[in-house]
Amino acid sequence: MEKYSIFFISDHTGITVETLGYSVLTQFSGLNFEFHAIPFMNSLPKAEAARAEIDADFSNKGVSPVVFSSVTNVELRMIIKQSNAVVFDLFEIFLPPLENAFEQSSIHALGKSHGMSDSVKYGSRIEALNFALNSDDGVNFKNYNRADIILVGVSRTGKTPTCLYLALQFGIFASNYPMTDGDLETFELTKLLRPYRDKLYGLTIEPGQLQRIRQERKPDSVYASLQQCQKEVRTVVELFNQENIPYLDVTNFSVEEISTTIMYEKGWQRGQI
Amino acid sequence: MEKYSIFFISDHTGITVETLGYSVLTQFSGLNFEFHAIPFMNSLPKAEAARAEIDADFSNKGVSPVVFSSVTNVELRMIIKQSNAVVFDLFEIFLPPLENAFEQSSIHALGKSHGMSDSVKYGSRIEALNFALNSDDGVNFKNYNRADIILVGVSRTGKTPTCLYLALQFGIFASNYPMTDGDLETFELTKLLRPYRDKLYGLTIEPGQLQRIRQERKPDSVYASLQQCQKEVRTVVELFNQENIPYLDVTNFSVEEISTTIMYEKGWQRGQI
Repeated sequence: MEKYSIFFISDHTGITVETLGYSVLTQFSGLNFEFHAIPFMNSLPKAEAARAEIDADFSNKGVSPVVFSSVTNVELRMIIKQSNAVVFDLFEIFLPPLENAFEQSSIHALGKSHGMSDSVKYGSRIEALNFALNSDDGVNFKNYNRADIILVGVSRTGKTPTCLYLALQFGIFASNYPMTDGDLETFELTKLLRPYRDKLYGLTIEPGQLQRIRQERKPDSVYASLQQCQKEVRTVVELFNQENIPYLDVTNFSVEEISTTIMYEKGWQRGQI
Repeated sequence: MEKYSIFFISDHTGITVETLGYSVLTQFSGLNFEFHAIPFMNSLPKAEAARAEIDADFSNKGVSPVVFSSVTNVELRMIIKQSNAVVFDLFEIFLPPLENAFEQSSIHALGKSHGMSDSVKYGSRIEALNFALNSDDGVNFKNYNRADIILVGVSRTGKTPTCLYLALQFGIFASNYPMTDGDLETFELTKLLRPYRDKLYGLTIEPGQLQRIRQERKPDSVYASLQQCQKEVRTVVELFNQENIPYLDVTNFSVEEISTTIMYEKGWQRGQI
């Protein structure tokens, strides 16, 4: 089956055009796509080379490629627009109406997202990441003082990946504490966590899904048995309810979905990255 | 100074609209923005509530808010469009011309990006993340067999954050090995790394910048002295050149910029996430 060629072109990382392009393309089913990323396209020779690559693709397939581009330099943008492609340039689409709305011209500066132009915010994201790494899985719990949030849940509910994502993307200081058999048997919140009750956020999961995840990690162990998973999940949910800890069922949730749900529920704004 | 209200509305995570919105807004300087994120807006009552919030903001400020939205359900989208705002709906902007290009209707399915609809790809991103965590900083070097890339460089050049980003965003299996004084004194590649020469990728940094980063971590140590930083950076660059290891100067590069540069140089396509 013919594959449609999709080009992602940017004078910077290309993260924005790729994110946008993938998102709108998920609205077409049954089509095959061939992706070509051309980041850091910031000079005349690079623009000419990109245009040649697009045109060669068109000659090859006889079908217009689709280009998602974000190119601030108008001269370079025009070179891409002259190619044999359907070109969506984000700045061309969005800037004129935004200039109207804000009654101000845009600055045509090289892509500023995803860089270090705001070094304070960038520094705090890296600091948050180091914090997540250094207080993962219940270690260094003295760090909890500094945490914005402490994820709690049984083993393999996505606590660590969520902490890392919250740190890297949003600069949130996130720790996590694994609820083990010992914690669960007492049916009460471990003393360790009590001073930080307001920071706790629970993750839970459907026991069958938990069993499949654990089975991959430690096949045929007690840890991975359905009975054990059922017991742990039931107990932890009782504990969340009893202690009034907000929680989320992550059975069908990706790290991105868990993280954006938490950000929204907490009323936290994503940093401008 | 008046702040312009910006709303990010989505029936799913909102990651795409936020990424796009922040990117185009960086093209306006000297303006202040107030951000409002409304993810998971997937029902009539939620849409009415969002519209009411937008209209209240307009009444308050007397200035039209700007809305970036991605809402697949046309009825819900129309409710947002009826608000007193400048509304950019991504699906409305991009889908009609894409339907022309592909000669096919779009499916109007709920936002599919950033979720788990492709569970194999999602699973491999999480697996890559666990791999990065378990083989960070030169531990478990037996894992190097499985690595797609091994970042090498002196301490505090961004190896760990880059590995985690490559894993989480792109599902790349990334390890790293820190070049310490011991490695650098011999002026040759440690035996450990020789079998994996083709996977090595160097990170280097301007010594003054390295000194500032280390100074924050271990103030007034030999480790953080300018002399030590200069020596380490000079030696490691000589080693990269001698051993023909490709490398990148990350002095002014964010984790996103380092990662997308590596992806491009390696010819790796970003997974569709």
